[in-house]
Amino acid sequence: MTTTRLALDAFGGDNCPHTEVNAAVRAARQGIDVTLVGDEGKLASLLDAVPGAGELPLRIHHAPDVITMDDTPSKVVRGKPDASMPKCFDLVRKGDADAVVSAGNSGVMLACGLFKYGRIKGVDRPAIVTPMPTKTGLCVMLDMGANVDCRVANLVQFAVLGAVYSRFQHGHAKPRVGVLSNGEEEHKGTDLTRFTGQLLSGYRGDLFEYVGNVEGTDVYEGAADVVVTDGFTGNIALKVSEGVARMFAHYLREAINESTISKLGALLMKPAFAKLRHVMDPDTYGGAPLLGVNGIAIITHGGASEKATTNALEVGARFVDDELTPALRQAVVDNRDMFDAARRIDNGEDVLAPVKEADG
Amino acid sequence: MTTTRLALDAFGGDNCPHTEVNAAVRAARQGIDVTLVGDEGKLASLLDAVPGAGELPLRIHHAPDVITMDDTPSKVVRGKPDASMPKCFDLVRKGDADAVVSAGNSGVMLACGLFKYGRIKGVDRPAIVTPMPTKTGLCVMLDMGANVDCRVANLVQFAVLGAVYSRFQHGHAKPRVGVLSNGEEEHKGTDLTRFTGQLLSGYRGDLFEYVGNVEGTDVYEGAADVVVTDGFTGNIALKVSEGVARMFAHYLREAINESTISKLGALLMKPAFAKLRHVMDPDTYGGAPLLGVNGIAIITHGGASEKATTNALEVGARFVDDELTPALRQAVVDNRDMFDAARRIDNGEDVLAPVKEADG
Repeated sequence: MTTTRLALDAFGGDNCPHTEVNAAVRAARQGIDVTLVGDEGKLASLLDAVPGAGELPLRIHHAPDVITMDDTPSKVVRGKPDASMPKCFDLVRKGDADAVVSAGNSGVMLACGLFKYGRIKGVDRPAIVTPMPTKTGLCVMLDMGANVDCRVANLVQFAVLGAVYSRFQHGHAKPRVGVLSNGEEEHKGTDLTRFTGQLLSGYRGDLFEYVGNVEGTDVYEGAADVVVTDGFTGNIALKVSEGVARMFAHYLREAINESTISKLGALLMKPAFAKLRHVMDPDTYGGAPLLGVNGIAIITHGGASEKATTNALEVGARFVDDELTPALRQAVVDNRDMFDAARRIDNGEDVLAPVKEADG
Repeated sequence: MTTTRLALDAFGGDNCPHTEVNAAVRAARQGIDVTLVGDEGKLASLLDAVPGAGELPLRIHHAPDVITMDDTPSKVVRGKPDASMPKCFDLVRKGDADAVVSAGNSGVMLACGLFKYGRIKGVDRPAIVTPMPTKTGLCVMLDMGANVDCRVANLVQFAVLGAVYSRFQHGHAKPRVGVLSNGEEEHKGTDLTRFTGQLLSGYRGDLFEYVGNVEGTDVYEGAADVVVTDGFTGNIALKVSEGVARMFAHYLREAINESTISKLGALLMKPAFAKLRHVMDPDTYGGAPLLGVNGIAIITHGGASEKATTNALEVGARFVDDELTPALRQAVVDNRDMFDAARRIDNGEDVLAPVKEADG
């Protein structure tokens, strides 16, 4: 078997390219073949300082341009073909790499994925997926912001793509899929969530089990392995959870610093706090793939640490080796009928029986 | 000045009527006149056991019926006129009370508010508001679930109602109003949030300052005093924040129990943890009024403690004394033009200049 080759955008993260170079070295030491994409001079001088780097499966691919905060997805795809991120995708297209990892802007990543890989046939829109911690382990939520306005066909496709991803990433043989809503009862929610729920509740295949609506609290109780939502709501849910976790940490720190006794207590609790931080830290969960494009592209968050970036490279390599993309393609083919039914609802050609409004 | 009289639904909460009776006694000892509404026999026997209850401004109003989990808003309003919650509103209508407090189902509360108080003239839909803790203090978010499908006119009205409430509840002379969205840039969001933002950014009055889009993380950093959103998204945000806080507490407990040293540390940190719990506990923030109905109705959460219920009675009395409802009415009159502009957008009669899509 040939080694899986990763293209790493070396100028994507908040602490680039140091984090990326160190992560590439760590991954290469584990046998992953990494091409660092970005300014050749800067990358070469950093690599030169690493003892034994010359022996590792590491390469540099020059990309003279950098994506800035002012760049929008369309601007990059049309106007910055030589930026490090699109160059990564070009390497895969030319057959010089098997997967992309980047900590850059997720909107630009999505545009690159669409433009360079294309969509999986039968998928209307790709989604950004995120692992979320729960009391009982991990779940995945999608879409996290790629698609602000969603239709029933999008959400039903997210259910299928998310279920395949959950099997590959978390080993769930038949993941429990739920729709994020404002109440568990099936009449709760918007037209979008209600119609999606009605279609998914008719699913009889082996890919997933539909568990109905899940509320915001249910997600963290571990009520579902895959939580489906539109990109607007998903982004709010993700950012609220980050915000609350940071606020919790802030007030905990403040309370600790109020007295010497508390400080002593906190010292004794250091290992316990480290464990807590591990659970709540997005770094723990590494990157997540763009789902629905015709290739592997792993997005890590901008502040991803060296460890999280290394983890993303490992995950990317594993998804190539385990053939995630072909499995996604097959699942889309298998569920064509459900997607067609969703499109008919979206186009007003078919109307499901209204869910009995318990509220009269 | 006559004493302000509160009607307390004694059969609304999870531990009713004990919590309600004890809270009524506490509030009455502070000079608030409370009518406990519910089963006369049960309430009388509980009150008889309280030493000195006879000297307090406490009354019982008989309501033979109880609202169950199976009751829907319309079922209660049409079919259970003798349940404790609608009976509370009847007391206000008859002039025997000035405000209502209940821990019952918020949907039923909204229906009672609409049916018994009616809407404030010029308000299309009332909203449920919730105080949320932030790193810098408290903000209020609305709507939290009363209105799943919202239009621009609703969100603009929520901004005005929420700003008045923020002034009364948190003392902000000119509250900062933000629209919950998936990005700070003004082109981010849905049509609903973008049009709302465009209208609010044109506001030049003294009631509030518009600060633009706020993301989920921004809310907990304290970026706004009033966060406006539709009831679906607001409910997700609220439940996610509860879920994350509970998960945090769960993992913290688990980490503490792993070693004797951690347990000792936790013991020393007891006052610090108590302070943290105080910040994160919804009980701390008591109840919140239904905003947009023509009278004071305070909703507390089902598990509200005695202290939180007492607090809700105090808050209700204060809103009557400070004349919150007339202030809300005035603000609606003052902002009639903005509401009309929003309705024209909703009806497709007027189109705002499209926000420049940075994304081309």
